[in-house]
Amino acid sequence: MSKRAPSSGYGQQVEGKRAVRELLVAGRRRVREVWLVGDGHDDVVDLARAAGATVHFVDDADLARRARTGTPQGIVARAEALEPVALDALLGDPAAFLVALDGVTDPQNLGAVIRSAETAGATGVVVPRHRSASVTPAVVKASAGALEYVPVATVSGMPAAITQASRAGVWSVGLDADGDTSVHDLAVADRALMLVLGSEGSGLSRLTRERCDVLARIPLHGRIASLNVAAAAAVACSEVARARHR
Amino acid sequence: MSKRAPSSGYGQQVEGKRAVRELLVAGRRRVREVWLVGDGHDDVVDLARAAGATVHFVDDADLARRARTGTPQGIVARAEALEPVALDALLGDPAAFLVALDGVTDPQNLGAVIRSAETAGATGVVVPRHRSASVTPAVVKASAGALEYVPVATVSGMPAAITQASRAGVWSVGLDADGDTSVHDLAVADRALMLVLGSEGSGLSRLTRERCDVLARIPLHGRIASLNVAAAAAVACSEVARARHR
Repeated sequence: MSKRAPSSGYGQQVEGKRAVRELLVAGRRRVREVWLVGDGHDDVVDLARAAGATVHFVDDADLARRARTGTPQGIVARAEALEPVALDALLGDPAAFLVALDGVTDPQNLGAVIRSAETAGATGVVVPRHRSASVTPAVVKASAGALEYVPVATVSGMPAAITQASRAGVWSVGLDADGDTSVHDLAVADRALMLVLGSEGSGLSRLTRERCDVLARIPLHGRIASLNVAAAAAVACSEVARARHR
Repeated sequence: MSKRAPSSGYGQQVEGKRAVRELLVAGRRRVREVWLVGDGHDDVVDLARAAGATVHFVDDADLARRARTGTPQGIVARAEALEPVALDALLGDPAAFLVALDGVTDPQNLGAVIRSAETAGATGVVVPRHRSASVTPAVVKASAGALEYVPVATVSGMPAAITQASRAGVWSVGLDADGDTSVHDLAVADRALMLVLGSEGSGLSRLTRERCDVLARIPLHGRIASLNVAAAAAVACSEVARARHR
């Protein structure tokens, strides 16, 4: 028996071609069952059977009943849950590169940010338990398998998490349209850091903004005033990765 | 009477808070009618009336009937169509910074790419007439107003468009996971160029890849092998903007 309450787990339901394939390739957790529609999944069937999963060939209606996203792309899997980690465990990594999302409510955006974070080499994702999207099947699908590799810490609030990061010697860098530093010139990019992203509509909350050590902006050169949060995350994560691999 | 066939226009239906606000603020085309649900749109009502649009206060059911996306966010507008421009007009700009999308079929991704392109200062977007998402209301909404400012050229095929760009002295830079140049070191970033992005699933087609002058990759530092096309576009556009404003 795990000491953690079972309700804290996430990611049991995995849908979509990329996410299911990555679940099977990663081999990080037990995959119990896979439901498939149609042909063209041969290699996934082999992977699933090699992983010890039961494979069910079903029709569209059956898959739609099992799916929890609107677009399972013909494939749904059930796996052992992923368990959130403690924020302190993520902060203890001297090469910590964390991405924290404060108030991102759109599952597509949350999943896309996690995917971009993973490809940039992020070592963890931080999500508040309230006022944000939780890690639903839509998030798992949009992350395209990134959640197999990137640990997630859930926190009670972002300002407290930033204080905790500060005590651990981890720099908090808030992305803000009015930030005084460009993400292209982020002096702390190769230190232990936590990028903090605000909500799609209103950005960082006042308290979160005040607690960040650095406020960084993505330079804008057009007429519209804002980037989508997932696009902003992709650019900022890429800049951190660039600085670390220079 | 315009000389163009009316069927070539796009963007008549504009939905969502950001896209409608930007439509009204931009003032680039006539806005005929705006339908609104609920309160909290006061400034939009003022903008709409100042623009000479008829404003209708409706209920949710009426708005849902008029909406062509699933999430109009309480606001729908009808405006004069935007008209595509000729590719040669975009290629003639000595500072051309074009973003071409070959086979991007997801309207959210297409709209997100156009939004990122605009914020990076792109001078135009190039979309094939077939095998790609067309500029539907969902694309207009996801572009968050960027389509008011970025002209769109529709082309019959991407390989021919690349040849046309080459004749006009515009460099074609294909984004490709196996590209031999990093987007961070793109020598031609400050020349007239066209970034070429492939489909979400399979990337650039063989012919498109062969015709590009440069194949550039976004360095990946994680375990999963690919970025979402909208994230890749955000990073590549940001790198081009950085090189041009250095």
